Amino acid sequence: MARTVGSDGEKTRSAIRDAATGLFARHGYDAVSIRQIAAEVGVQAAALYRYFATKEDLLFDLMQSHMDALIDSWEQQRPNDDPTARLAAFVGNHIRFHIERRHSTHVNNMELRSLSHDRLSTILRLRGAYEKELRQILRDGAETGAFVIEDVTLTAMAIIQMITGVIVWFRPDERLSVTQVTETYHQMTMRLVGAQEWESQHV
Amino acid sequence: MARTVGSDGEKTRSAIRDAATGLFARHGYDAVSIRQIAAEVGVQAAALYRYFATKEDLLFDLMQSHMDALIDSWEQQRPNDDPTARLAAFVGNHIRFHIERRHSTHVNNMELRSLSHDRLSTILRLRGAYEKELRQILRDGAETGAFVIEDVTLTAMAIIQMITGVIVWFRPDERLSVTQVTETYHQMTMRLVGAQEWESQHV
Repeated sequence: MARTVGSDGEKTRSAIRDAATGLFARHGYDAVSIRQIAAEVGVQAAALYRYFATKEDLLFDLMQSHMDALIDSWEQQRPNDDPTARLAAFVGNHIRFHIERRHSTHVNNMELRSLSHDRLSTILRLRGAYEKELRQILRDGAETGAFVIEDVTLTAMAIIQMITGVIVWFRPDERLSVTQVTETYHQMTMRLVGAQEWESQHV
Repeated sequence: MARTVGSDGEKTRSAIRDAATGLFARHGYDAVSIRQIAAEVGVQAAALYRYFATKEDLLFDLMQSHMDALIDSWEQQRPNDDPTARLAAFVGNHIRFHIERRHSTHVNNMELRSLSHDRLSTILRLRGAYEKELRQILRDGAETGAFVIEDVTLTAMAIIQMITGVIVWFRPDERLSVTQVTETYHQMTMRLVGAQEWESQHV
């Protein structure tokens, strides 16, 4: 049987990414050196440079993977359904995704400032594509009369900030489970967008 | 006329605080040295230590002042009125306060991780006192039947994340004024809490 080429390499790469995510989240990108990341992984800095030529390459890789995974998870969950059901699915997927990736979410929210211009554009394009999905749901709902929306862009930002904010305070072992938190945020979101069909069932 | 004691000192202290806020917001606390802050102010590092004995003293001073100013601004705005009017005032004050202090808000949101235990407790106590005001408004509204609230704590966090999030994307010279943004967030908040009286006037 042929040796699986690069399997150790993949393990090391993954360990580097995990260590960097934790260190960047705790101390900020600027304050963390390649040497520190290598020490946490248990390799020499020279070995780390074989995987990522610069610290910014590593940061960009983390941020791009985070956005790719977020968009993938939404594409797998997205129902082919009315705006109310799609919005519920969007909120549920967003909260679950970010609660499972607390450190990575902090890095993605804070370190846009640390990317060079072209890479910043790439990440902002991915963000834009993801947020456009939410704006489309809101627009569809406003058009069919399912939702009451003053401003699609502001409403999309408000919902994203509100549901991403869960990771700031939520610890899964406290008084509420992920499911309970998601359900409450679902109810708040439905009221926020004035979801008519949903209200007739719940009020 | 007696010389105003300490007026130059106050100017320097204020310049140090402004420079540190900007540098911490852009690079993260861990990555910024006292020497860099001093260079931005145009003084020697030794002079800066006369105002703040350690870098953490400076960070704590910034975070504590931010929270004190936020609580003060709310106490000055707080109407002696029904929950719906108080919630509208809370949202308006919170958005205006944070839009005017973008860098300081970033530092306050990100650098809790950089405080020692006792100082973290002090800042969290101030945050708690501020958030308690919002929880009280929500509780009052739920009790009088003015609001529909599933969970006071979650709703308070959702509202604070949503309205603090304005600073992430809002630039006052774009298509919307601060007043327009505040008005739209006001409407979204009222729907989010199921404000009955407000809905009967607006739907």
